[in-house]
Order: sequence, then C-alpha cells, then structure tokens
Amino acid sequence: MQISFWQLRSEQVKESGHEGEMTMENKRNLFGRRQYIVDKRSQIYLAVLLVFYLVIYSLALLAIILGPSALVFTSESTPWAQKVATSREFLSLGEKVVPAVSVIALLLAVHFILITHRLFGPLFRFRRVLRQWGEGEWPRPFKARPKDFHQEVFEDFNKATVSLKGDFGQVKAEISAALAGLQKMESSTAQPEQACQLKNIGQSCQAACAILDKYGL
Amino acid sequence: MQISFWQLRSEQVKESGHEGEMTMENKRNLFGRRQYIVDKRSQIYLAVLLVFYLVIYSLALLAIILGPSALVFTSESTPWAQKVATSREFLSLGEKVVPAVSVIALLLAVHFILITHRLFGPLFRFRRVLRQWGEGEWPRPFKARPKDFHQEVFEDFNKATVSLKGDFGQVKAEISAALAGLQKMESSTAQPEQACQLKNIGQSCQAACAILDKYGL
Repeated sequence: MQISFWQLRSEQVKESGHEGEMTMENKRNLFGRRQYIVDKRSQIYLAVLLVFYLVIYSLALLAIILGPSALVFTSESTPWAQKVATSREFLSLGEKVVPAVSVIALLLAVHFILITHRLFGPLFRFRRVLRQWGEGEWPRPFKARPKDFHQEVFEDFNKATVSLKGDFGQVKAEISAALAGLQKMESSTAQPEQACQLKNIGQSCQAACAILDKYGL
Repeated sequence: MQISFWQLRSEQVKESGHEGEMTMENKRNLFGRRQYIVDKRSQIYLAVLLVFYLVIYSLALLAIILGPSALVFTSESTPWAQKVATSREFLSLGEKVVPAVSVIALLLAVHFILITHRLFGPLFRFRRVLRQWGEGEWPRPFKARPKDFHQEVFEDFNKATVSLKGDFGQVKAEISAALAGLQKMESSTAQPEQACQLKNIGQSCQAACAILDKYGL
C-alpha cells in the first residue's frame, strides 16, 4: 500500500477520532511549521500540574514572607490604625502580585509545553510509523529529532525491525528458491497430474510471496 | 529463545551499559517494589527544569514583593538607621525563606519525578518488549498501567503486531500447505531425480518455516 506522508497524516488524524488532534490541525496553522501540542490531554495535564506547583510554591513563599505581618494584623493588641495600614499594604500587594505572577506562571507553562513537545512529538510521529506498519508498509529506521526524548526506544525499535526484516527477508529468499525449483520441475514434467500438483504448490508459495512483497521484504 | 522476565531484566540493564540504569538497580531496592527513575537523564532533566522554573518564579515574586523596600534601601535620601533596619529585615527573611523554599522545591521535584515515572516507566517496559522481539520472541499485547501516559502508542503497536502476526501466520499456512503437497508428491514419485528436486524444494520451505516458527507464528 503506497500512502504518501501528507496523505497519511490527515487521514490518520481523521481516523483516530481524537477530538484533541482534530482541533490541533487548526492550531498547527497558527504556529506555522510545527505543531506544539500533539497529545493535548497529556501536555495540558503537565502544564496544569506545573501551574499547580507554582501556586503551592507561591502560597508557601507568601506565607513565609507575609506571615509575620499577618500575625501582627490578627493580634488583638495591634491598634486599629496599624491594622488598616497593614490591610491596605496587603491589598496593594495583591493587586500587584496576582497579575504579575499570573503572567510569569503562564509564560513558564507555555515554555513547559514546548519542552513536553520533545516528549510527545516523537511518539506522535512514531504512532504514524506503527500505523503504516500495521497497514503493510515496513518501517524505515525511525529518527527522532536530536533534542527529542525517548531516543533509546526508537533505537530499540529500529534494531527490532531490522532484525525482523532480515529474518523475514530470509523467509522470502527460501520461498523464492522453492518457487524457482518448482518452475524448473514444472517445465520438465510431462505428466499432467504431476504438473497440476506442482502448480498447486507453486500457488501456495506465490501467495506467501505476495504477502511478504506487500511489506517490501 | 526463551528468556524469563527477570533474567532479561538484569541482562538488559547490563547490556545497555547505561550508567544511570546500573545505579537504579540499587535504588530499586531502596524503594521496594517499584523503581521510580527508569530514565535517569530525562527524569532528572525535567525535575531540574521544574526547580529552575521555581527559582525564576520566586525571584520574580520576591522582586515584586520586596522591590519597593529595596528601592527605599538604595535611595540616597534614606537615613542610615533605616537602611540598617531594612538590611536586617532582608537578612532575617533570607535566613527563613531560603531553607523553607528549598525544602518545598525539593518536595515538588520529588513529586514531579513520580509523575514523570508515568511518562518513562511504560516506555522502559516497552523497550524490553522491543528487544525481546528483536531476539525472536513475538510480542504479546503490551499493556501499560492504567495511569501511564502514551497509551495510544501501545495500542497502535499492539494493532500493528496483531496485523503483522496475522499476515505472517498466513505466510506460514501457505508454506505448510506447500510442504504438505510436496510430501505427498515425494511419496508417490518413483523417479530418483524428481525425488531429489522435491526434497530440495522441501528443504527451502522447511527453512522458511523454521524462521517463522522461531517467532511462534
């Protein structure tokens, strides 16, 4: 089965029926050449986790820095005027801190998504190879981008496919040899019954060959 | 080739020659049943990245909260006594903040490593399957743990292997049919030359069969 790179791409996205991947096709145009979210659920999950960490972290940081002032504020011995002043300080701080740290957290989350692209991007491309393979196209060595994660997985995969291709190529060679022998016999046989038997055997071998040919072995 | 699960495990860790995986064998005992760092370089990289985010974030947060005080401190119009007081405040804050946020950052990094285990753990087990496959053991359907990432990759892999197994099983069936036909002819042939030719063809088919048998097809 001959499917070009781009054909398969859009077909697969449709096939997979993944809501995430569908909308990502649109996002892809936004970002130009590359799409940065290939596994929406997982990547968003990790980015949200990061923001969650930042929230916990900032709450802890604020508790440590502003804790003493808050204690002063809640103490009954503190005069009202000082309480009002402290609460004003807190309010103005909140007004400054919340938007600023939100922007920083958002920027960090976006950067983190770019990083997770190196985790999920190669696997997205790898899935394409697996699908093509399942449809009868023997995979060429899969190469992740230099900075991608999981390089060892793809190396192991490449080794396995090369080893399998070698073995199944040998199967093909043996069947081809058998076929050549059968043809030679068939041409030299005068008995019609024998010729028929040889033809049947040859058909079995040819059917086996056809399957191996499908995978380009 | 029959290799049991645990045999392969330790063998592979040795084979891979990965310094990280070697020491992880020791860590494994520490953690008891599971090992949480399966891809040392990648997981440590992500944890360090998280800590780096936290440092950037806390610097920004501190700049916003303590910035005004710092401005007062550096201004020339501020009296010396106030400057000394502010610097004392800063020092005592630093003494409290640095160890506390270090502990929090460390805890978050450790938690993050547990999360990344769901990213790298299944792929670590997947690599084992790929290696076994390369050595001639056809993979059973690979099942990631329910909370693991990359489930779709393994689904695609399983589909591909099932599809391949079906196709190569058919090759095996065709060759077996051919072999049966050859044996039937061999037994009914009286001519020694023909018998020899049939034997040669049969040997080719048997060799092909042997390779497919190796993979349990």
